[in-house]
Amino acid sequence: MSSPKIQKLVLLLSKLPGLGPRQATRLAYHILDQNRDFAAELAKNIVKLREIKRCSRCFQAHEERPEICSICSSASRDQNKLMVVEKDMDLETIEKTGVYNGTYFVLGGLMSPLREDSQRRIRLKELVGRVSSGNAISEIVLATSSTAEGDMTSRYIEKILEPHMAAKKIKLTRLGRGLSTGVELEYSDLETFKNAYLNRK
Amino acid sequence: MSSPKIQKLVLLLSKLPGLGPRQATRLAYHILDQNRDFAAELAKNIVKLREIKRCSRCFQAHEERPEICSICSSASRDQNKLMVVEKDMDLETIEKTGVYNGTYFVLGGLMSPLREDSQRRIRLKELVGRVSSGNAISEIVLATSSTAEGDMTSRYIEKILEPHMAAKKIKLTRLGRGLSTGVELEYSDLETFKNAYLNRK
Amino acid sequence: MSSPKIQKLVLLLSKLPGLGPRQATRLAYHILDQNRDFAAELAKNIVKLREIKRCSRCFQAHEERPEICSICSSASRDQNKLMVVEKDMDLETIEKTGVYNGTYFVLGGLMSPLREDSQRRIRLKELVGRVSSGNAISEIVLATSSTAEGDMTSRYIEKILEPHMAAKKIKLTRLGRGLSTGVELEYSDLETFKNAYLNRK
Amino acid sequence: MSSPKIQKLVLLLSKLPGLGPRQATRLAYHILDQNRDFAAELAKNIVKLREIKRCSRCFQAHEERPEICSICSSASRDQNKLMVVEKDMDLETIEKTGVYNGTYFVLGGLMSPLREDSQRRIRLKELVGRVSSGNAISEIVLATSSTAEGDMTSRYIEKILEPHMAAKKIKLTRLGRGLSTGVELEYSDLETFKNAYLNRK
Repeated sequence: MSSPKIQKLVLLLSKLPGLGPRQATRLAYHILDQNRDFAAELAKNIVKLREIKRCSRCFQAHEERPEICSICSSASRDQNKLMVVEKDMDLETIEKTGVYNGTYFVLGGLMSPLREDSQRRIRLKELVGRVSSGNAISEIVLATSSTAEGDMTSRYIEKILEPHMAAKKIKLTRLGRGLSTGVELEYSDLETFKNAYLNRK
Repeated sequence: MSSPKIQKLVLLLSKLPGLGPRQATRLAYHILDQNRDFAAELAKNIVKLREIKRCSRCFQAHEERPEICSICSSASRDQNKLMVVEKDMDLETIEKTGVYNGTYFVLGGLMSPLREDSQRRIRLKELVGRVSSGNAISEIVLATSSTAEGDMTSRYIEKILEPHMAAKKIKLTRLGRGLSTGVELEYSDLETFKNAYLNRK
Repeated sequence: MSSPKIQKLVLLLSKLPGLGPRQATRLAYHILDQNRDFAAELAKNIVKLREIKRCSRCFQAHEERPEICSICSSASRDQNKLMVVEKDMDLETIEKTGVYNGTYFVLGGLMSPLREDSQRRIRLKELVGRVSSGNAISEIVLATSSTAEGDMTSRYIEKILEPHMAAKKIKLTRLGRGLSTGVELEYSDLETFKNAYLNRK
Repeated sequence: MSSPKIQKLVLLLSKLPGLGPRQATRLAYHILDQNRDFAAELAKNIVKLREIKRCSRCFQAHEERPEICSICSSASRDQNKLMVVEKDMDLETIEKTGVYNGTYFVLGGLMSPLREDSQRRIRLKELVGRVSSGNAISEIVLATSSTAEGDMTSRYIEKILEPHMAAKKIKLTRLGRGLSTGVELEYSDLETFKNAYLNRK
């Protein structure tokens, strides 16, 4: 019904996470209704993403230097601590808390029981390489979400890193489980209460 | 925290309707994580929107011919009927129903009690021009949403079109009010029941 | 786990519409935690419901007089108009609007394609009796919800009342369909737009 | 509008948690529409709540024996462990997990910064009495919700129990904080991530 150009854009926008066809249509028409500078600016900045590199050590998106990101090259960060996260968004959320002062490793996804290619899709080989290489790591924190996929991924990483841990005396930890802020006990699930009880202190 | 290029894109995406900063960040990183062809394709299709014109009669977005859209130039559409709608999305929704066989006029927005520039922002002058010009219109249907802004806009249009109606014997109607599909009487508001009762048949 | 008395009460409360077992448990403990006067008062007022009668003409719940409710016996109500509603709650909602000044007939439910006993369960026989009896009715308004069950019920009533309408010159109407208050055109369904268009005025 | 008896019942039902006037009206009419046995049964079981006692040791609702509930008198429960909870519902949720094998103390509410009577309203004096009395308690677990009120209550209890702890060598713990089941890191708040990080293991 609508113009083929709108239809094509709607199709592309619908591939983005959280955008159904209706919301995609709304966005397409909204971009159309702005003055042309907006569309040009938006397109230009999407193209510019190609200039973003991934750090060769932690694989986070960055554009500061050719190879190593500012966290991996910072003298004020604890280079002996390595936190394994799923994606850039997680790293960004964690940095905002200001609680963690070590380095990161961005997996680029989680393993999934539904996808056979899970192990190739995420940077497991690179993680093993990083850990087994010469760098002095004292602790690895597995900071995946407490979902089925997050747990599956952490368990798998524990298994493949195991041969390297003992030899190098690396401590492997996972984020603590328990009551999240704001949880009412009455609504907590078995697993959460169990963890909260076992991790009481 | 994140790369300046991501930040810039997030800023632009946040201006789109329904996208908060968090969702915008998610979209930006998602585009980054796709292969480069996707970003290039997306950008290209956003730029191409500039080739979309607006029909000089009904102002809907179209790209078929230089001036007049396929509805305005169709011999199988009732050119004596004119339905006034807020935006392209509404026109698209209505066309999908297949119920209406006349022509349209796209206002490009609604008046708002909160915005002083309402009357300049939408195509009121063009609507008056269309109605007062030589075309034989027998009925104008005001098809705005049944919201405060939709009602305000319809009332204003009735007022400014009035001088032209009597002379030209044009019938001016509004979409019927009543129970929408699926509404339970128990939850209906006063205005809706009142309209449903007065419009009983 | 909890006391058998709490469990029994939870079981009964769970049978009420909209109360799942968790909410029912919360209510039961809440009643327990109030002072005893509250529970006694609540129980007393539940028992007292048995003193509520149904009007022998319109079947609404009332307690004013032995037989006929205040609406059916009011000289200031238009006794020639009869509005057929599903349940007391609907009648109450409609009375609050102040739009309607006739009388009612409370069906006590709707027909359902899923229940074979629909026709016996609701007061269809009583409705036919009321209409075919001597009272001078000039208009019957079928005021069911605009749901599948509401529509099915209204269609069935039209069919069974038909033989009585022509002879008595009774007008049979249904509540008007169209845009409910607050509906945005962009989100309206086919049926609603179609009705809004056909009922334009 | 509706009958005074319905109105009175609606008023009482509206005082229950989570029931607004509309839902209360729906429940009242639903009870009215059931056969009379249901209303009688419901009322009877509400009245019977008065036979429920509170255990003189842990204050949970019970009806088994005159004084002491089955948990407080069970030889198979660890009588040296005491878990302090807000209300019966919490105790019930915890018992369903099967994780905890000690005894309880039901506060009967939480302190609130908005209510001056907080300290009298909940069983703080009774808790101090229980702890300071002769019973051999080795650990007290404060199992309040991880909300502002839950935290305020736990902090206050820590303060008033402190004089009794050292002398009796009682360990005082709180439920562990961290990621609840199903939490995605990207959506976790500062406090939750901080706790999850500090409680990593």
